[in-house]
Formats: sequence, C-alpha cells, structure tokens
Amino acid sequence: MLKVAIVGGTGYTGAELVRLLAGHPKANVVALTSRSEAGRPLSALFGNLRGVSDLAFCEPSLEALSACDVVFFATPHGVCMQMAQSLLAQGIKVIDLGADFRLKDTDAFLRYYDMQHSCPDVLAQAVYGLPEINRHAIKTASLVANPGCYPTTAILGLKPVMMHAQHIEPYVVIDAKSGVSGAGRQAKLELLYGQIAENFSAYGVASHRHQPEIEQGLRQLAGEHMPEIRFVPHLVPMFRGMFSTIHLRLSASGEKMDWQSVFEVCYQNEPFVRVLPKGILPATQTVRTSNFLNIGIHQDGKTLTIMVVQDNLVKGAAGQAIQNMNLMAGLDETLGLLSVPV
Amino acid sequence: MLKVAIVGGTGYTGAELVRLLAGHPKANVVALTSRSEAGRPLSALFGNLRGVSDLAFCEPSLEALSACDVVFFATPHGVCMQMAQSLLAQGIKVIDLGADFRLKDTDAFLRYYDMQHSCPDVLAQAVYGLPEINRHAIKTASLVANPGCYPTTAILGLKPVMMHAQHIEPYVVIDAKSGVSGAGRQAKLELLYGQIAENFSAYGVASHRHQPEIEQGLRQLAGEHMPEIRFVPHLVPMFRGMFSTIHLRLSASGEKMDWQSVFEVCYQNEPFVRVLPKGILPATQTVRTSNFLNIGIHQDGKTLTIMVVQDNLVKGAAGQAIQNMNLMAGLDETLGLLSVPV
Amino acid sequence: MLKVAIVGGTGYTGAELVRLLAGHPKANVVALTSRSEAGRPLSALFGNLRGVSDLAFCEPSLEALSACDVVFFATPHGVCMQMAQSLLAQGIKVIDLGADFRLKDTDAFLRYYDMQHSCPDVLAQAVYGLPEINRHAIKTASLVANPGCYPTTAILGLKPVMMHAQHIEPYVVIDAKSGVSGAGRQAKLELLYGQIAENFSAYGVASHRHQPEIEQGLRQLAGEHMPEIRFVPHLVPMFRGMFSTIHLRLSASGEKMDWQSVFEVCYQNEPFVRVLPKGILPATQTVRTSNFLNIGIHQDGKTLTIMVVQDNLVKGAAGQAIQNMNLMAGLDETLGLLSVPV
Amino acid sequence: MLKVAIVGGTGYTGAELVRLLAGHPKANVVALTSRSEAGRPLSALFGNLRGVSDLAFCEPSLEALSACDVVFFATPHGVCMQMAQSLLAQGIKVIDLGADFRLKDTDAFLRYYDMQHSCPDVLAQAVYGLPEINRHAIKTASLVANPGCYPTTAILGLKPVMMHAQHIEPYVVIDAKSGVSGAGRQAKLELLYGQIAENFSAYGVASHRHQPEIEQGLRQLAGEHMPEIRFVPHLVPMFRGMFSTIHLRLSASGEKMDWQSVFEVCYQNEPFVRVLPKGILPATQTVRTSNFLNIGIHQDGKTLTIMVVQDNLVKGAAGQAIQNMNLMAGLDETLGLLSVPV
Repeated sequence: MLKVAIVGGTGYTGAELVRLLAGHPKANVVALTSRSEAGRPLSALFGNLRGVSDLAFCEPSLEALSACDVVFFATPHGVCMQMAQSLLAQGIKVIDLGADFRLKDTDAFLRYYDMQHSCPDVLAQAVYGLPEINRHAIKTASLVANPGCYPTTAILGLKPVMMHAQHIEPYVVIDAKSGVSGAGRQAKLELLYGQIAENFSAYGVASHRHQPEIEQGLRQLAGEHMPEIRFVPHLVPMFRGMFSTIHLRLSASGEKMDWQSVFEVCYQNEPFVRVLPKGILPATQTVRTSNFLNIGIHQDGKTLTIMVVQDNLVKGAAGQAIQNMNLMAGLDETLGLLSVPV
Repeated sequence: MLKVAIVGGTGYTGAELVRLLAGHPKANVVALTSRSEAGRPLSALFGNLRGVSDLAFCEPSLEALSACDVVFFATPHGVCMQMAQSLLAQGIKVIDLGADFRLKDTDAFLRYYDMQHSCPDVLAQAVYGLPEINRHAIKTASLVANPGCYPTTAILGLKPVMMHAQHIEPYVVIDAKSGVSGAGRQAKLELLYGQIAENFSAYGVASHRHQPEIEQGLRQLAGEHMPEIRFVPHLVPMFRGMFSTIHLRLSASGEKMDWQSVFEVCYQNEPFVRVLPKGILPATQTVRTSNFLNIGIHQDGKTLTIMVVQDNLVKGAAGQAIQNMNLMAGLDETLGLLSVPV
Repeated sequence: MLKVAIVGGTGYTGAELVRLLAGHPKANVVALTSRSEAGRPLSALFGNLRGVSDLAFCEPSLEALSACDVVFFATPHGVCMQMAQSLLAQGIKVIDLGADFRLKDTDAFLRYYDMQHSCPDVLAQAVYGLPEINRHAIKTASLVANPGCYPTTAILGLKPVMMHAQHIEPYVVIDAKSGVSGAGRQAKLELLYGQIAENFSAYGVASHRHQPEIEQGLRQLAGEHMPEIRFVPHLVPMFRGMFSTIHLRLSASGEKMDWQSVFEVCYQNEPFVRVLPKGILPATQTVRTSNFLNIGIHQDGKTLTIMVVQDNLVKGAAGQAIQNMNLMAGLDETLGLLSVPV
Repeated sequence: MLKVAIVGGTGYTGAELVRLLAGHPKANVVALTSRSEAGRPLSALFGNLRGVSDLAFCEPSLEALSACDVVFFATPHGVCMQMAQSLLAQGIKVIDLGADFRLKDTDAFLRYYDMQHSCPDVLAQAVYGLPEINRHAIKTASLVANPGCYPTTAILGLKPVMMHAQHIEPYVVIDAKSGVSGAGRQAKLELLYGQIAENFSAYGVASHRHQPEIEQGLRQLAGEHMPEIRFVPHLVPMFRGMFSTIHLRLSASGEKMDWQSVFEVCYQNEPFVRVLPKGILPATQTVRTSNFLNIGIHQDGKTLTIMVVQDNLVKGAAGQAIQNMNLMAGLDETLGLLSVPV
C-alpha cells in the first residue's frame, strides 16, 4: 500500500482527495495537515467523511510527511515550493495541485501570481501532469504539477487541433463556465449561496491565471502554428462541473478534414477521455463526480465548435492527481477512478 | 414625502428596504449608513440597485439621521438601543428590524442575546410591530420592534387558535423551514453555496432566539391557556422563503369546531394574510418577493395542521417594517407593498 | 385605461405579462385565453397571482378579444398568424410574443419553423419590436413582432458595433447562456428539476431558430459590412436570466477606437439599457425580474468582448412587449416597467 | 457472479441500481427492461452511464428474465405482482422496489393504491426488506418488498423508541422533507425546474401512501403501545436527500431515560446506521449518494426530537435493495455499498 499524505486538507480539493482515495485499493491516506484545524477530526469539517475516515488534521511539519511515499499539496500557491525540495530529497514523490510548478516561465509566474519563484531548479524537473499529453514523463517523475481545471479542458479539447494547427486560423476563443467549487472553500461574500444561486456572471476576463498555463500547454503542441488564445471564464450556479466551449475557424485545408474522426482517433485509447458521437452535445451532469472528460465536436463549414465537460474537482483536480499518482507508482492508471458519474 | 434613513444597509434586509421603498409613492430614502462601507455607492454592493438609487453609504452618526422622519435599523442586536433614545427625543420615529425591543422580559433578552439591555425605559414604550395583532398601538407608536421572521409565521399561524386555546391540547410543535437569506449576508463558511445547495439541515433545535419571542406573542393571545411550544428550525436550499408547519392536537371540544371557518373569519379583513381554500397547500413560491403571508389548514379528527408561508425578507422583515411605517405615518397600510409575487 | 387581452396565458410568458400588467397604471387585463384551461381561475395555475387577479381563462375566440384595445399573443408559432388579420381589421393592436412576424423572409420562416407563412401581406406591415432600434416605427405600428430573447441580447449588444462594422473582422461569435424558463412551461423530461439543477449543457448548436432573427437584425444595421455570425446557446441551472458573451476581433482601425465610449454614447438616452462602467462585469442577478439590459465591454488589443445580461422573461419577452404597448399607445415608454430588480 | 435483471429501468431508481451495481464485485446486470425504450442503449437516457454500461433496454418478457438469479422491479405498483409468481416458480429471487408487497393488509392496499391485490398468497411469503429490522428473514426470503423511502427513515428513526413505547405519549409527529427525485422521473408540470427551484411546499398531508406502511412497520415493534402517527411530507428544492424530523413527548418514566444511549446501543453493530454524537445535527449532504442513514437525537425535558437523514435514492431505494440482495445471496451485506458520500 502506498502511504499518502495531503497537505492542506481543509479545502474542497483536499476533501475530494480523501473521498476518492477512500476507494483506492492500493493507497492509504496516513496524514492530513492543516495549520488552522490541527487536532480536529476530518469529519468535523466534512460530515460526509464521518465513519469513513477517522483521521485528524495535524500540523504541516516535515516530520509528519517523511513517512509517506507520496505527498499531495492541495494548498494555495507558494506553499508547495517551500517544502518540495526537502521531500524530494528524502525520495518522497510530490504532486502539487496548486500552481507553483505549472508555469515553466518564472517571469510569467511572478506576473500572474505576484510572487517570486523560490526554487527554479526544482521547477526545472517538474513534469506537467496531464497524462494524455505527458504520460511517459509522468511515469518517471518525482514532482508533478497537477494542471489547473480550465487548462485541462482547454488543452485536451484542443490537442487534436493543435497537432494540425496549420489547418486553422490562428485565433481561438475559449468561453469557459465553471461551477463555484472551483473558487475554493473560502469565507467570502461573493461565494455565498445568495450571490451564486440563480446568477450567472463573468469574471477574470483576459486576466485569469490559467491563461498563461493554457498557452504554455498549447504551444507545446502547436509549435510555430500557435494561435492567439482568448480565454473568458464564467461562474455557473452549480457546485461541480466545468464546460468549455471552444470556438475556432478552419482554414481552407482544415475545412476539408473530418474533425470528428481526428478526435476519435486521437483519444481512442484514453481511459478517461470520451469523444461523443456526432450530434450528442455534452452536459456536465454526465461526468459529475467522475474522472471522465467528454468532448463533443460540431463542424459546420469553416467553423469548428469544440465542447468539453469535466468535473472540475475530479478530472480538473483530485482525480487527475490520483491518475498521476498511479502512473508515478507504476500502478494501473485507472485504479480507484472508475466509479460511475452520479 | 416621508424622509427615511436606514442604519446598517449592507445586509439583505437593508437592501430589501431600499428595493421596496424605491417603489413607495410617499417615502424617500435619504440616508443609508454603514461604518465599513461609508463613501461607497450602494450599487457597488448591490448591483440590482444600479441606476435605481444613487445613494452612497454614510457614517452612522446622529447628525446624518436627524433630518429624517423615520429611521429603520437593519442592524445586529445591540445597535438600535444605543441610538433609539436620542432619535426619539428629536421626534423621529424608529423601527428596529433587529431584536433589541422585541422581548419585554430583559432577563430573557440577556439569556438569549447574551447582552444586558441598556434602556429598559425605552423598551417599555416599544410596540411589537405585528399589525395583525397590534395595529391600533402601532398607529400611535414612536418606536416599533419589527418581529422576527419565524415569530411572524408562528404568531399569525396560531392567532386564530390561541384565541380559542382552551380547545386544544397544551402542546404545539412548530417545525419551521427557512431559506438561507434568513441567516444574513455574512462571510461564513456555513453559508457558502457549497454548504447550502443540495442540502437540508436542522439548526438551533430548542435554543433558537426566536423561541422566547414566539412564546411572548402567543401568551398575549392565549393567556392562561398558553400551551407549551416546541420550535425546531431548519435550513432549506433556497434564498428566500419560509414555511412553518404547525402541529397540534384538538381537545374533544376543539374537534367539533370548523377551524377553516375560524381562520377565514379571523383574517377576512387583513390585506396581507390569505387563508387558502380547503385542500390547497401552501408553497413559498406563491408569496416570493411579496408581503403576503398564506395559511393553509388541514383538520383531521383530533389533529390540526397549520401551514404558513411568507417571504422572510418581506413579510418577515423589510415589508412588514414598511407596513409599520405606513401605519405610524397615518398612510394607507398597503402603500408600496402590493407588488405581485414573482 | 387600455383594455388588454392575452392569448395563451398558461405559459411563463403569459403569466409574466399578467404579473407586470398588474402594476401598470394605464392598462387592464380583461381577457386571458387558453383552450385547455378555459373556465379555470388563473390562480389555479399560478399561485402567485391568487388575490392579485380574479380572472379565469376563457376560450380563445375572436369575440372574447374584440372588446380589447391590445391583444398579446403568448403562444407557440402559428397561432397569431391565424387571428392577426381579423383583429387588425377591427382596429385592435396586436403584439406577438411568438415568432410568426419576426422573420421578413418567409422562406427562412418555412425552413426554421417548418411551416408555411399564412399571411405574407400582414407580415409586410409588421414592425420588429425592438424599441432601441425601431422606436419610431413601433409608435405607429398596428402589429408588432416582439423579439426573441437571444436576439434581444445579440442585437442590442452588437448595435454600437454594427454601426461601425467596417472596423471589425467579419466574424462574430455569440456564446449565449439562458435560464430554463426560456424553454417554456412544458411537461418534458429534459426540463425536469433533475435534468437542470447542477447541470450545464449546450443545445441547438448552429441550428437554433433565433439564428436567422439575429442575422436579420444585424444586417439591417451593418449593411454591406455584415459579419458572419456563429451562435451557440447553452442552458444554465437557473430559472430566469440570460447572459450573452460576444467575441469579435477589431480591424487595425477598430483597434484605435474607444469602444467603451461608443457604447456609452449609443445608449445614453435609453431608459432600459445600461452600459456598465469599465471594469464592472455583468451578472444576471443584477437585472432579475426587471426590464433592464446591462452591457459590459472589455477591449484588449484587437479583441473586443461584449457581455450582455437581461431577464429573458422581462426584457427578453413580456417586459419588452409592454414597452412596445406603451409606445404603440402613446404612453410613457417606461410605464409599469421601473420596478427594481429583485 | 450473480446475474441480475432490472425491470423498469427508465426511472431514477432503475438508473441508480445500474450505477451502484456497476461497482459491485459480485453482481452483473445482464438485462434491463423497458416497454417504451426497448432497443435503445441505456446511455441514451442516462448520459452518465455512457461507457460504463453498454446494455440496451429490452422488452419486459419472462424469457429475458429467466436466465437471472435476481430480478429487481423498479416499476410503478401493479407490475411486480403480475410477474412475481412465475419468476419465483423458476427459483429466481425477486426484489420489488415498488409497493406491491409492502402492505400485508390487502384492504389497505386497495384503499391507498386503488387496486385489488392479485396474489395474496405470494404476498404472504414476502419479507419486508428493512435489514435493521428483518435481517434474519431477508436472508432466506425469495421475495423481498423493498421499503418506501419515507418509511425507512420513520421506522429506523423510531425503532429504538418503539421498543420502549410504553415510555412515550402515544402521539408521534413525522414532519418529513424530501428531494424531488422521490417523485420519480415523470414528465409532469409540477416537477419542472421552475416549480421546484426556490420553492418549498407541502403535499399529501394525511393522505400519503407511505402512511399505512409506516404504521405497519411501527406496530410490529410497539405492539400494544403503538402510538397514533401524524405524517406530513414536504418537497425540498434539491434532487437527492430526505430529512425526517420526528417529534414526540416522553412520559414521566421516559423523561428519566438517556435516549442518546438507547439509540447508540440499538444501532452499534449496524453498518449503515450512524447515531450522531450529542449536539451534532444531521444534514442531507453528509449522506448524499451513499447508503448511510444518520440519526441525531435531541432530548429536552419531556420532549424528544429525532432527526433522520438518508439519500432517498440509495438507502431509501436502490442501495437498500442491493443490501437486501447481498443478504439473500449470502454475501457480505455491505458489498458494493461503501462508497463515500459525495
């Protein structure tokens, strides 16, 4: 059994890791840290875990973590980069669900996260944890940067296109919609029920932190044909779920291609990516609580519309992190992740 | 035109006062105070008021209020009792939507609100602002204690019964359900969308602050036949609306009475209380955003079930406060309050 | 007082007309028709109207309507065109909230609505009822085609751009999101609570009936510079509200323009269109239950993002219909329509 | 592996059986019937099952079922009693999630379900499938009547009390609240999103079909001390979840008892019933999607309040049915049912 620790277990992502790992046949959560809640049982914060886990939160010290095989960081940015080096030095594998190791460009990190990167050398060895792109590198990685939720939909939704990026016009709109759990478990007025229910709003237009991450991921695929990216996120009155509608124009050569086939071929062997049959449009409900990411394609003359859905807490965070853990540990990639969407 | 001020305008109740008073033909909001938001326009907090009100929040000083005819306090308990006396001395009428002047028993106030009452003499002249009970006294009052939301449903739901309290068994269960706006606009984890949506929970069993207020109101009506009251509130995954299900047993004499008629007669001249026809069950949606309170009765042998619905922010708070203002100012009681439920 | 009839009053739009007209100082609903519900009181279907309206549904005969000044059709397409000519012949004004008189092109009508238009001559005299575009013509019209909800957001959101359409690249994406009330009050499995709540989905990609209506409206403004339009609608887990995100690219000349100013100037005298200050992003909650339509602009190099919100049942349907009625009857355009968003 | 068939798989309960059985290590769904959907793949109705199950609906013939070990009926009442006898004759075990075999009193069945019972002899051998009451009998049963959702909460919430029913006053109020999935997947206007969201309503006061089932279950436990039962169900604006608040009065002897202990002892060995620590109040979210049923107790003088939560589709329907299947097949009772609440 893998011994697993979770640093920062009081957020939605940490709790989701606990929920999913409870059903994992080869991993056990042995430590869960929280500075503010140290000493309290996990079930005091997350009633659904009563009787499932009798863990209590502990202080986030290196000692608490050093007996583990894998440490997940479900923390705000800036935390993992303080501790990663020490853990790696002890041979412990690290998976950061925060943003510290996602951007290879430390200038961009500074600009978007308003923080100097403290360990560029560690960053250099980090692998971006999108298995459908980097599976091979993840298997041998010690440190995995788990992707952001929006970038997961954007990069996987566009991968088959970026590999043929010469056949599109170089401008792509990503109109994305997220359930409120993406904003985390924070006591803020704008996250109250009264602000979210029966409300649909935009936020972070042209300034969202996931913009450079999306661009980095796509550039790796498109190379010199990299298009300009316009990313506009919105907030949906629901808890879980993310829907990205990607709008692009095909060039004359692209118009003649059968993109439905291109997508189906690209993802035919992926366990968690499902290309929907022609005519079926995605809905977030069909992947809720699961690690599946569904893609629907609609081609219409020069226009290509790609629609991607996932559960932002699972494939967009905790589920993908476990998928990465499975790969890093040499386990079957799907272990603990095949439960049916609710 | 009545000149109106609102102290503590950053909560849901304050905003609801502004919304309702915007449609009032004889009253104008001229000041709106908030210590924390002083200087900011109202629309910065409540986007729905953009273009409707160009008021800005100001400091809660007596000067700001002294030019007004009526001052509403939409504040936590303890605020109004600091300022009421000075305002009253200037001939300004005061309507407290908080709890400072609801309980005549200062010991109970201390016990439930954990605060010594600072002006029992002012308390003595306060009138409990339930027009369907105290209309006459409200008309000449200078200081009105606007009822709590649960007590409004409980007292109006039970008024026709309490007036014949010798015909029931002396034990009444009030199983109440409230939308989350009743908990106010506070940055608390337990009020986040993720805690409220798709969740139904109980809280404050046998300890809610509205319990003594309900008892005080019913005792006034039932006298020596006052029953024991069991009050259990619950939280419903919705924003507005309150539903109180009242369970009681009839005595042998009560069993022979036609309670549907008793209720209809009791409320036949009330503009805002509607007794539903036999067989129609209430739903909160049918009164949403309005000052109506609907009551459905179901009599079955010795059992009487009374179901009461209101919008907790309107008849349960701001609307009722305006109804009181209308009465205190000698206006038609229904002015500004007859908009159709949405 | 205007005497008003509503044909097809059992849907959400019909009920919204009743709700809004109840607060109109110069119009009275005197007849409300429904073939299936004839004889039943309105409040049996819409509990919120109990005590507000004691109307009962009647059969949709010409006799019932001939005593009216204005007849609203809140019916599926095909109904109004059967009755319009007779009503107009009697000097009765007609406002169709359905689609019969929206498209000037009867071929497009046939193609999108699968029905031959029965009275092209009547169609020729119909005025498209978007006051911010056609105010002058509406004032003297006998027959007004009330716009669809999506086209209202698209045409008003793009009007200032279309009037300078030579400064944009000729391709516009409208990524639109609607609350479920837009789908009407129909007993269908896909509209059940369980299908809608906690779900976000796309539908009608590249085939929605509002596509040709949007194009017709924009072509009138853009003329030879008419761009290609891509319209993708989505369904949001909420009841009321519509959010259209419009994505377009500026040409070199357009990049130098100050679009915030262009929008502000264009709408400076409109009572119901509010251009938000720079940096404020729209949210559907801020216009809920009201006739306001808010627009937020975000310009970023060659990219222009326009975000439009409205209540689809009010500015997107019943409110706009009343705005048209006011204009047709020579009344103040805003009568009955200035209630504050809830 | 057990071969399992589901008759009537187009409802929420049938789909939930498929979802839960997909994770069951010792059972396989081999047939799924639906008269109306025969031939269509399951995923066409339930998108969440795409890729999980490639079953298609088939006609509900005896042939299709005769190769199975267990047949679940997720059908309206009246269906199972047509087919049960033939299946039992072939040695196939039957679990009816409908109501045909719940009431031992065929007169009550006729009165509440408006249908003559067609096979009273089969009814005589049916076992009421509440494992916490009838575990022993279920293990050897061929035909199990799976309990209704409300009765599950009522009977388990009251079991420890009924076993000491001489210590309470003989009148019990069950004020129950259910998410809308309890009403099933039916194309009815009253189940539309617009009728449910932001609405709380009562229904079926004193006439609900679960009333006699609750009484039958409690009478078995309380015997001569059986109290009168008042059952009032309500509809909550959420999809899954049920909350029953049970109000009762203790006799003088009952007042001296420690009911928290009574409950804890009663359920100490039950895998799915959790008695919450004193002071913790239940919330439906803490059991959502799981087979757990949580009970909170609040004792206050002569008053005892019992609060019970469950997921109505799991412990209240499909999960409990699988628990019964496990018992009937001699498997570990918890197989396939230990997933963590979401």
